[in-house]
Amino acid sequence: MNAIKALLQPRSVAVIGASRKRGKIGHEVLRNLIDFGYSGKIYPVNPNADTVRGLRCYPSVLSIGGDVDLAVVCVPAEMVPEAVTGCGRKGVRVVAVVSSGFKEIGRSDLEERVVETASRHGMRVLGPNIFGVICTPSKLNASFGPRIVRPGRIAFITQSGAIGIALMYFTILEHIGLSAVVSMGNKSDIDDSDLLEYFSEDPHTSVVLIYMEGLVRGRRFLGAAMRTSVKKPVIVIKAGRTSKGAQAASTHTGALASSFRVMLGAFNQSGVLYASSIEQAFDWARIFVEDFRPLGGNLLILTNGGGLGVLAADACDDQGVELMKPTQKLREELKKHMPYFGSVENPIDLTAVADDDAYYESVLTAVGDPDVHTVLAMYTQGPLTDPTLIAAKIIKAMKDVRLATRKPIVFCGVGGEQVERAIRLLQEAGIPAYRTPERSVSAVSVLLRYTRARARVEKKLAMLSSR
Amino acid sequence: MNAIKALLQPRSVAVIGASRKRGKIGHEVLRNLIDFGYSGKIYPVNPNADTVRGLRCYPSVLSIGGDVDLAVVCVPAEMVPEAVTGCGRKGVRVVAVVSSGFKEIGRSDLEERVVETASRHGMRVLGPNIFGVICTPSKLNASFGPRIVRPGRIAFITQSGAIGIALMYFTILEHIGLSAVVSMGNKSDIDDSDLLEYFSEDPHTSVVLIYMEGLVRGRRFLGAAMRTSVKKPVIVIKAGRTSKGAQAASTHTGALASSFRVMLGAFNQSGVLYASSIEQAFDWARIFVEDFRPLGGNLLILTNGGGLGVLAADACDDQGVELMKPTQKLREELKKHMPYFGSVENPIDLTAVADDDAYYESVLTAVGDPDVHTVLAMYTQGPLTDPTLIAAKIIKAMKDVRLATRKPIVFCGVGGEQVERAIRLLQEAGIPAYRTPERSVSAVSVLLRYTRARARVEKKLAMLSSR
Repeated sequence: MNAIKALLQPRSVAVIGASRKRGKIGHEVLRNLIDFGYSGKIYPVNPNADTVRGLRCYPSVLSIGGDVDLAVVCVPAEMVPEAVTGCGRKGVRVVAVVSSGFKEIGRSDLEERVVETASRHGMRVLGPNIFGVICTPSKLNASFGPRIVRPGRIAFITQSGAIGIALMYFTILEHIGLSAVVSMGNKSDIDDSDLLEYFSEDPHTSVVLIYMEGLVRGRRFLGAAMRTSVKKPVIVIKAGRTSKGAQAASTHTGALASSFRVMLGAFNQSGVLYASSIEQAFDWARIFVEDFRPLGGNLLILTNGGGLGVLAADACDDQGVELMKPTQKLREELKKHMPYFGSVENPIDLTAVADDDAYYESVLTAVGDPDVHTVLAMYTQGPLTDPTLIAAKIIKAMKDVRLATRKPIVFCGVGGEQVERAIRLLQEAGIPAYRTPERSVSAVSVLLRYTRARARVEKKLAMLSSR
Repeated sequence: MNAIKALLQPRSVAVIGASRKRGKIGHEVLRNLIDFGYSGKIYPVNPNADTVRGLRCYPSVLSIGGDVDLAVVCVPAEMVPEAVTGCGRKGVRVVAVVSSGFKEIGRSDLEERVVETASRHGMRVLGPNIFGVICTPSKLNASFGPRIVRPGRIAFITQSGAIGIALMYFTILEHIGLSAVVSMGNKSDIDDSDLLEYFSEDPHTSVVLIYMEGLVRGRRFLGAAMRTSVKKPVIVIKAGRTSKGAQAASTHTGALASSFRVMLGAFNQSGVLYASSIEQAFDWARIFVEDFRPLGGNLLILTNGGGLGVLAADACDDQGVELMKPTQKLREELKKHMPYFGSVENPIDLTAVADDDAYYESVLTAVGDPDVHTVLAMYTQGPLTDPTLIAAKIIKAMKDVRLATRKPIVFCGVGGEQVERAIRLLQEAGIPAYRTPERSVSAVSVLLRYTRARARVEKKLAMLSSR
């Protein structure tokens, strides 16, 4: 069994330092593990307890009868090398060291000892200084982060523990589903590249999102990113990309920030999609979950408000997205679903009277037109129409054509509470939905960029392998 | 009485075309007027009804006994000139023409007739093709937009009706308070400049936000913007700023888009703050509502997560915000409120253990330091702390120093539901609070830019007047 597989799909987990005291990290990790519904064997290890949270407790990892795939280490830093030695003797496959107090506070010596020990026993190390590891298909939540994780198809890898936990809360709020969350902490051994190799093959993952501060072993990362990018998108948020940010990062993790311009060039070469903010990264991830297959760059925008169309057109110009010129045939078809004062110039203005039926018919028309490659349906809330009804009809239109096409349909709604509800309905039905024209166009844009990047990287990999 | 004052603080309002039928625009305008609690006289005008919504109805505006300050015209376009003639004879001060069917569909002739008629009688015209006018201090909602409007200190002027209404719903959702909403539609007579002159003097308005598509009478606008900017900020969202957007705009309102680069230069000269999105415009407006007075550009960031600090530092670099170097004294003070592994380099890392007391003490310390000009308190949600408690203590810190200083305090929270609650608490207490590092730094940045722009425009106006 591959070490990363043992980390994310372990058949058994030992929690070393499983405290009886609530609030202690070792206690919380065990509690999440139990409460999230992990079905493998769980072994709390604590020499001073008989049971923790109703489970039989072991004085040491060596005293466990069965095999242990993953050991989550929560004991104080000074005790970690000894704990890892025990794991090695036991034949553990991989250790996740949650404990902090290593390189991040100047104790590189202790960290090196941990990695050397593990390596001597053929084990890999995640961490130290992490909040844990989560894999929703395995029902594994070996972390002291949020207990609830919404299952989904985004694998989220984070170098910062605090940001990682905060974003887990954020994904719950924003109804974003995750296949896995891996906190990498100090990246003493297992790093982004190892995880990319795993997630590129993982059938539960459609897109990988990495929050990165420092990049170590850059060349290896770029190779892994290339191999992953031809299968699924890799989105990177790079903190510390400016000189002020890099300075702050060096205080924080001790990572040496590379020159960002060089890094951005390398990212582009490898197909990595660089996101400039957390919000953008998750906006992008959302659209990749849907497995859309745009056949080209022709975008058709449908809107019930001219102003929103203008803002979207500005965003298209900013982001290099083409607004197709509708054919005469398409114009005539669309005219049937709008009043005489509507507009069939792209963005198509269905006007404020456009109801759910008008959206249904015009989305069907647009998706059915072979020249249209992507449809962006936009809505500004007004007194005449109900966005939740419109959402329902767009979902129906999508379902009516789903078997025939994987043409992207994206929604943008501007308004209040009812628009929020419409957005939720659409997201849950598999239509990426956004709150501003800029964000929706950004999602359309990244889909096209990824399609092009993948083709480019495929060619490059083919060239490299034919040498 | 000035015409714009008559528009926003009328002593009496006639609704011409006050239909008995729900859903009809004339009915909805009257309904909003009554339900929003307008205390002046309301006169429905409709020759085919005795009463509408319980109010006595008049067959014509001339048959009304008392004076009429504002007439809201909702009859079909072809009937508007006649209605306006009646208003002129009656001695109405200002007419707001809600009806559409004018220049926007090629009927410039009809529109010109309306303006000429009004002008002959000394009346001003708002519109046509608008959704109405709202003024919260006057409890006036003469619109067919949302019935509920949150009172506040932002005056919102919009050229697009659909965007205007959608953003009114958005302000309710986002707890944004408005002093006024004015839909300008075709801007046949009353335009941005007239409204700026009024809002610059309006004691209920702290900041003016304009959604603009086309700019007519540009020189006049820039003059009005300069005179306003020295008193309060003017934020403009300009749709149709790119070539694609301008093309879409010309379809929509028939407005000729000026060269954006030229316009942006003129905006800068006049102190206008140009926002590139709706979201940004409202983010900025929020911070100006608080009447902060930054004494300089020194920003101190407090955070409970290094990663968030790095992202904020990147945003500072991007947006030209200085991260001050804390003095030895400040460092020593701050050290008292963090564990030994915290950092007193700016961004100050209070670490994940920072609780409400740590935030309270460090915010107090930062605000109390004469070298610190602005404080940005950041929070990443973690399992150890409760963001609503932290919010409460930041509010307490703010109140404890409020009498002594108008130093800006801004909050940024990343996380889930609890962070959303914390953000609401802070916003309601007068601390601008944002969901991402980029947005919070953008707000800090615009505050500094406005302070500098105001000084520049003041100097220029003084020079012009001394000639």
